[in-house]
Amino acid sequence: MPQFDMPLADLQRYRPERDEPTDFDSFWDRTLDGQRVHRAQPMFVEVDAGYSQLVTEDVTFAGFDGQPVKGWLLRPRHVEGPLATVITYIGYGGGRGLLGEWTGLPSAGYAHFVMDLRGQGAGHRTGDTMDGPLAGPHHGGFMTLGIQEPDTYYYRRLFVDAVHAVSAAQAHPAVDAARIVISGGSQGGGITLATAALTQRVNGTPPVGAIVDVPFLAHMRRATEIVDTAPYAEISRYLGTRRNDVDTVFRTLSYFDGVNFAARSTMPALFSVGLLDDVCPPSCVFAAHNHYAGPARMKVYPYNGHEQGGAFQDVEHLAFVREIMGG
Amino acid sequence: MPQFDMPLADLQRYRPERDEPTDFDSFWDRTLDGQRVHRAQPMFVEVDAGYSQLVTEDVTFAGFDGQPVKGWLLRPRHVEGPLATVITYIGYGGGRGLLGEWTGLPSAGYAHFVMDLRGQGAGHRTGDTMDGPLAGPHHGGFMTLGIQEPDTYYYRRLFVDAVHAVSAAQAHPAVDAARIVISGGSQGGGITLATAALTQRVNGTPPVGAIVDVPFLAHMRRATEIVDTAPYAEISRYLGTRRNDVDTVFRTLSYFDGVNFAARSTMPALFSVGLLDDVCPPSCVFAAHNHYAGPARMKVYPYNGHEQGGAFQDVEHLAFVREIMGG
Amino acid sequence: MPQFDMPLADLQRYRPERDEPTDFDSFWDRTLDGQRVHRAQPMFVEVDAGYSQLVTEDVTFAGFDGQPVKGWLLRPRHVEGPLATVITYIGYGGGRGLLGEWTGLPSAGYAHFVMDLRGQGAGHRTGDTMDGPLAGPHHGGFMTLGIQEPDTYYYRRLFVDAVHAVSAAQAHPAVDAARIVISGGSQGGGITLATAALTQRVNGTPPVGAIVDVPFLAHMRRATEIVDTAPYAEISRYLGTRRNDVDTVFRTLSYFDGVNFAARSTMPALFSVGLLDDVCPPSCVFAAHNHYAGPARMKVYPYNGHEQGGAFQDVEHLAFVREIMGG
Amino acid sequence: MPQFDMPLADLQRYRPERDEPTDFDSFWDRTLDGQRVHRAQPMFVEVDAGYSQLVTEDVTFAGFDGQPVKGWLLRPRHVEGPLATVITYIGYGGGRGLLGEWTGLPSAGYAHFVMDLRGQGAGHRTGDTMDGPLAGPHHGGFMTLGIQEPDTYYYRRLFVDAVHAVSAAQAHPAVDAARIVISGGSQGGGITLATAALTQRVNGTPPVGAIVDVPFLAHMRRATEIVDTAPYAEISRYLGTRRNDVDTVFRTLSYFDGVNFAARSTMPALFSVGLLDDVCPPSCVFAAHNHYAGPARMKVYPYNGHEQGGAFQDVEHLAFVREIMGG
Amino acid sequence: MPQFDMPLADLQRYRPERDEPTDFDSFWDRTLDGQRVHRAQPMFVEVDAGYSQLVTEDVTFAGFDGQPVKGWLLRPRHVEGPLATVITYIGYGGGRGLLGEWTGLPSAGYAHFVMDLRGQGAGHRTGDTMDGPLAGPHHGGFMTLGIQEPDTYYYRRLFVDAVHAVSAAQAHPAVDAARIVISGGSQGGGITLATAALTQRVNGTPPVGAIVDVPFLAHMRRATEIVDTAPYAEISRYLGTRRNDVDTVFRTLSYFDGVNFAARSTMPALFSVGLLDDVCPPSCVFAAHNHYAGPARMKVYPYNGHEQGGAFQDVEHLAFVREIMGG
Amino acid sequence: MPQFDMPLADLQRYRPERDEPTDFDSFWDRTLDGQRVHRAQPMFVEVDAGYSQLVTEDVTFAGFDGQPVKGWLLRPRHVEGPLATVITYIGYGGGRGLLGEWTGLPSAGYAHFVMDLRGQGAGHRTGDTMDGPLAGPHHGGFMTLGIQEPDTYYYRRLFVDAVHAVSAAQAHPAVDAARIVISGGSQGGGITLATAALTQRVNGTPPVGAIVDVPFLAHMRRATEIVDTAPYAEISRYLGTRRNDVDTVFRTLSYFDGVNFAARSTMPALFSVGLLDDVCPPSCVFAAHNHYAGPARMKVYPYNGHEQGGAFQDVEHLAFVREIMGG
Repeated sequence: MPQFDMPLADLQRYRPERDEPTDFDSFWDRTLDGQRVHRAQPMFVEVDAGYSQLVTEDVTFAGFDGQPVKGWLLRPRHVEGPLATVITYIGYGGGRGLLGEWTGLPSAGYAHFVMDLRGQGAGHRTGDTMDGPLAGPHHGGFMTLGIQEPDTYYYRRLFVDAVHAVSAAQAHPAVDAARIVISGGSQGGGITLATAALTQRVNGTPPVGAIVDVPFLAHMRRATEIVDTAPYAEISRYLGTRRNDVDTVFRTLSYFDGVNFAARSTMPALFSVGLLDDVCPPSCVFAAHNHYAGPARMKVYPYNGHEQGGAFQDVEHLAFVREIMGG
Repeated sequence: MPQFDMPLADLQRYRPERDEPTDFDSFWDRTLDGQRVHRAQPMFVEVDAGYSQLVTEDVTFAGFDGQPVKGWLLRPRHVEGPLATVITYIGYGGGRGLLGEWTGLPSAGYAHFVMDLRGQGAGHRTGDTMDGPLAGPHHGGFMTLGIQEPDTYYYRRLFVDAVHAVSAAQAHPAVDAARIVISGGSQGGGITLATAALTQRVNGTPPVGAIVDVPFLAHMRRATEIVDTAPYAEISRYLGTRRNDVDTVFRTLSYFDGVNFAARSTMPALFSVGLLDDVCPPSCVFAAHNHYAGPARMKVYPYNGHEQGGAFQDVEHLAFVREIMGG
Repeated sequence: MPQFDMPLADLQRYRPERDEPTDFDSFWDRTLDGQRVHRAQPMFVEVDAGYSQLVTEDVTFAGFDGQPVKGWLLRPRHVEGPLATVITYIGYGGGRGLLGEWTGLPSAGYAHFVMDLRGQGAGHRTGDTMDGPLAGPHHGGFMTLGIQEPDTYYYRRLFVDAVHAVSAAQAHPAVDAARIVISGGSQGGGITLATAALTQRVNGTPPVGAIVDVPFLAHMRRATEIVDTAPYAEISRYLGTRRNDVDTVFRTLSYFDGVNFAARSTMPALFSVGLLDDVCPPSCVFAAHNHYAGPARMKVYPYNGHEQGGAFQDVEHLAFVREIMGG
Repeated sequence: MPQFDMPLADLQRYRPERDEPTDFDSFWDRTLDGQRVHRAQPMFVEVDAGYSQLVTEDVTFAGFDGQPVKGWLLRPRHVEGPLATVITYIGYGGGRGLLGEWTGLPSAGYAHFVMDLRGQGAGHRTGDTMDGPLAGPHHGGFMTLGIQEPDTYYYRRLFVDAVHAVSAAQAHPAVDAARIVISGGSQGGGITLATAALTQRVNGTPPVGAIVDVPFLAHMRRATEIVDTAPYAEISRYLGTRRNDVDTVFRTLSYFDGVNFAARSTMPALFSVGLLDDVCPPSCVFAAHNHYAGPARMKVYPYNGHEQGGAFQDVEHLAFVREIMGG
Repeated sequence: MPQFDMPLADLQRYRPERDEPTDFDSFWDRTLDGQRVHRAQPMFVEVDAGYSQLVTEDVTFAGFDGQPVKGWLLRPRHVEGPLATVITYIGYGGGRGLLGEWTGLPSAGYAHFVMDLRGQGAGHRTGDTMDGPLAGPHHGGFMTLGIQEPDTYYYRRLFVDAVHAVSAAQAHPAVDAARIVISGGSQGGGITLATAALTQRVNGTPPVGAIVDVPFLAHMRRATEIVDTAPYAEISRYLGTRRNDVDTVFRTLSYFDGVNFAARSTMPALFSVGLLDDVCPPSCVFAAHNHYAGPARMKVYPYNGHEQGGAFQDVEHLAFVREIMGG
Repeated sequence: MPQFDMPLADLQRYRPERDEPTDFDSFWDRTLDGQRVHRAQPMFVEVDAGYSQLVTEDVTFAGFDGQPVKGWLLRPRHVEGPLATVITYIGYGGGRGLLGEWTGLPSAGYAHFVMDLRGQGAGHRTGDTMDGPLAGPHHGGFMTLGIQEPDTYYYRRLFVDAVHAVSAAQAHPAVDAARIVISGGSQGGGITLATAALTQRVNGTPPVGAIVDVPFLAHMRRATEIVDTAPYAEISRYLGTRRNDVDTVFRTLSYFDGVNFAARSTMPALFSVGLLDDVCPPSCVFAAHNHYAGPARMKVYPYNGHEQGGAFQDVEHLAFVREIMGG
């Protein structure tokens, strides 16, 4: 059944109770406080990939525990800054990719910062960031990495990287620190929800808007009950083997669930959903949207799955970015 | 078996006999001669889609029988022309798409002309061109449309459109008519092979290079024997129903097979192939490459299918375009 | 889940609101009035395919815009006419096939008229009718052909052909014009529903019964939401690409939806449904049946899909035909 | 790969060594001799299924061990006999079906005898014959039933039934005993090969021709190595479980392999093959054909699987039947 | 959808009306009475398979109609009897397997009796028992074997074998006849439910506990409506072919449905269910559990299918066996 | 095609050239030398899981870099030691599992040491060993973890663990250090090949035999070309994304390929292969076998895939173990 989840009318009202640990905020305060010591000046090095109309820079900044995280910064060569800037987080398995994948926003006059993902970058877009000293980009296995405890869970490190990426972008002279929109689809949408909530706690000049396409990492328990596709299936396989660990796993995940972050974010947000999406099911996307604490609108694609609006959604992005930041 | 076709070493030597009708050239001469009367001045209308660093224009030109065919022309706003230009033909089912899908080449300083495909544009990229008065963009069915005779076959009209697209691009003042590279992947690769051969016959200033990624419409009989995927499967289904029409169908197709066009093209060419490609099988791609009459190089992706090099191949494109046309 | 649609008890009560344009009737009156000028005497030519006990004739009659449409007429050689006659419309992708596929009804003493389908006949049964001058039988692509406007939609032409087929049959001396049952499965069931309603408007001696097996083209919007199989999937793919066209598409389809025709047909009808049918889902079949304006009965096959009753349903056909027309 | 088996040119020459037990002939002589005692007069009872132009009879005859086996006999009502007659054996899982499935040959002036299959008739066509006192028609499991010994193997009983069916048909006054063609597709083709060879040994007036479409039960060991589809897969599953029984199983099967029967049949034969057939792979069909001891021709369908020629092959059947028996 | 059946909360309350024939008890009384005459002394023969720490015996006992049924009896070599004993029935397609598959319970100090299944043992575990004189182990086809009448249905014979197996085990001097737990998963669970109910009627010392993992043969009509996997699909295919036999089939099955046996069993029972089980769907397992007449507990595996708890469930088995029988 | 790889006769001769780095031996000498410092006394703690006839112990020993690695040691309670012992390595994704999974060998009188796998144990058998401080058992991702360099590759750590496991077992008083057979299937087979070769270099009393079932990690490049199943597909996905890293990846893998280890192992070995195995393809298994430097025999299962002989192969194991070590 293509529309395998709830009917649209039900989705629009779907606001399930949140599964949220009582120390959610203190967990993150503790985590982010502990990472302050690792802040360092990011490095930007211009690279020539042939895109003569753009300035393209290779970025290195200090992520979790000060470990180096890579990124790209692209901006139009012929526009004076400081520029309104979009930061993008990538979907599961991908890294920052190649520069040629990111010419759209700079062609529209914006700076674009693309954060690489530790250990990922071997699934659909190449990446260049290690997850600690031994784990270069590799294929698969992040969903349950360290899931035994919130403190060891992979996404704790990744979300810290994402929060630091905002500061790193703000450190660049061509970036207007007060005009930043964060964005991402799928896992990138989940990271965006986390970053929106967390930067509001720790960054004096948090982003001013969030683009959250078909977010992954949201309402995760239901997701594992209604879809059996990668990457949620990594959780299901884990629990199908380790049958006594169901409570442990969902306790850990509750610190990272986008629904809980959504309830803490107040910047304007643009969501999208594909009603046929069997990777990030519609009810999980709506659960995050319907709990979102700030102004949020949802773009619905009734005949699309996880690919959602594609280039049509890029048009929505441009409109939202312009509406929020001008340009 | 992922590498289901021949081993690479055999592929590199694979040069099957061509199935070519004796009147191949006269068929196309007659066709193109008959279309000269329909030539008309193309129309270029600037549109604002928010890409402030580019000039973006909606194109309408006279295709087969003078029917209006759409396209996009994009170029960098801050570079003086006339510009080296790339013309792109789209894969099966797609149309010219939205402007935001084409910011890469203009960001690199080139003009980019994207031709829409009559009747297509309802499969993966949206389109806006009718195939005659009744058939707007629709999903599927082009592979066997009019296949009973070469004169009624759909691709006769489409290849004429593609030849006219070159002249249309050359008519724009910002385009350097002597520095044009034609390009395309899959069906777009098949159209590129045809256009390379045909423009050499009828255009005084033919393109100077061709990019042919994983070409469709090449060595078609073998393709139907070794893969059963869309769109070649439309032929197989046709013949599985109309069991007496095998000879008729392959006679028609012989006028449109990329292997026969390849043997007539002399401009430098860049090919690519995915060794796991079950849409346009490697041996069919190599058959075209190995019959190519001009200088040709092949980029091999051993662990990719029809998606071939993706952004990695875009890097190859830029290098090839720069090598051929400067810029 | 094999019974993926509603439980049988709910199906039997399922009578959704109709999505019907206000000018539905005037659209069809205008269409059929405009076609009156194209009526012409049908041509019947006896052919020998070895079925010595039958008289078998090749039929050509004037369809939409007077274009020639083919058919077969078979009848028992040893029965004096005029005969009670069954007209059959074919399922998606098929044509009139070969004469040997239609020996059942004539063996039972009836005349059988099988209408060919313009452009189809390359999917499961061979056909011989062009859809205009360029489009011979081809594989796929009819569901969205001309869907931008009701006036250009493929099924407008096809339904006119079907209405004219009734008159063509009635013109044959061996056919008893007052004893005709129209019939079809899947797409043929959709055509039957349309023909039942439309012949009542324009044919002084409309058919006296309708056999509607697992009708396609009925309650189409729901169909695209609950199944993703060919041919409804052609609509879904179209809308998955052309994301802004949802309203346009369903406006066009509302002029062709079997539910709207059912609400206008009063001749006795025999329906069938397979509760596992994922091509023409049960709720869509029941929607047409439950809106049917005349006496209708439904034969339910709980363990069958789109193949429904097969030879068991042929037994029902014979009983219904005998009940309605004697013989 | 659709053409997954050998290329056509290799198929046409493929004549593998036969795996034939030394006592093949004596096994069958002993078997058939032992069954002579069970011969009995068949019973023919006219039934009215509404096919007024035909005479339709329910048949009961004595099969293996005298057990009652059912069948249908259909013939044209308006032709004087004795008639040239076709006997048909059904594919795996099917039974004699309903009378309405068999109107083609009588419409062409022939008598048609359709034999029911013991225990089968619950897979695709309904049946009415028990395999001993406990086993009515049931779904699946025949391929390995009693496979431990040739004497207990299911097909020993079935082939005896098939041989007796010829005598039963010959006992009907409307049947011309000297003008009988036996026929069948898939399992029916395998039974036909066996019956052709065996009736030549024991029936004074054996059939005069054989139609063998895509025969099953031929070159079985290779079949299990290159396809994994039902019903050959029943053997593979058996051996995948009972890993020490490979030799036992193929010893039993060697008494029933169509290749060994083909080498003993001399009546003219018409074969067919689908080059995409993954149920009865082309090389196994050609193995039988290329070992056939009499005049045989092969109809090749390059773009079809197990469905082979469908109605197109019915045309070949009529031509072959006429050629062999007149009519 | 992985959790394709009802939500857990609904499952826990799901207690559908039973479809039970009025003569259910008299049918079984008659059956078991009729079999008393066939009781005979079982035979136990020690075999050496290398498991030096165990005593391993090959068993032959008189099953339905006195036909020989095989089994294994394993027990610890270094423990004095009589021993608490577990009897196990195997899942669909399997037989008693090899001795090495059953070392767990004897290593824990219990005797273990594994009953072979007539005709099965060619699907996943090898077997050695004939179903009558002609049918050795074969692959598939048991679900509808003799389904036309309760008296001829395959499972009537099998359930009688299972009841006799208990007496056979009790006849061994090392077995404590008063301390027996019967057990099985899938088909083995269905047999366990039947044996629990039936031994209470006819065995003076019935088993004292039952382990029923993911039982098959329970709430069968619903099962055929919501899953289409082997082996329930054998019923669906049968009814998809023999469309008029729906009532006949479910009447027969009602004599064998685990829900009806559950309502008659009072010994303590341990059930298990996998919420993703698409072979024996959760609602059918809960239907049996929720109708169970004795004390029953259910172990739920939310992220498992038909494999349920695997080695984790073995831990539950040991605990249950110890709780019921000590040891 | 079930037998998708080479015919058996070709497999038996298949001895491809080895892709072996010149510093293969020095890499492993350096690695193992560097690890000597981390040797420590293993810890054995008896646990009661209810298997009263066995002594069951939880093991912790020092693996790579001295990190704690878990294991089980089981032995018969009623046999005096020191015992001949089997060490088992687990397949991809699995850990040491639960004690109840390992009662077979102790029931036959042997001690059985089962090594846990760092980071694995969340795929099919549960595990309890961390891969460094952050990575507890998780699902997937090991095949390309650290693949950028041989020194960082995951399997370097794992193979060191496996070598240390032998010493750990030898440290137990009930184990006869001179009578050890190492064993494993799939990934466990690959580890066995590595351990056989490496213990011969560094352990004064290396194992005396090796059981290598359907080994994974052997002839890996060919494997990625002919199968696309987990886990080899993790390499293919990596290279399909990171298209420039083909040489890097296969250079790293060449240090870990079972073919290279096989060429260095001289202890007697028992191999098995399933001719339908699409996880560890037959040609890769034979490549390792045919390069094996010691006496090796191969058990061929023609109708099995990766499950190979199952309980039938356990019989072969027992025979081999007895042959090598007595018992």
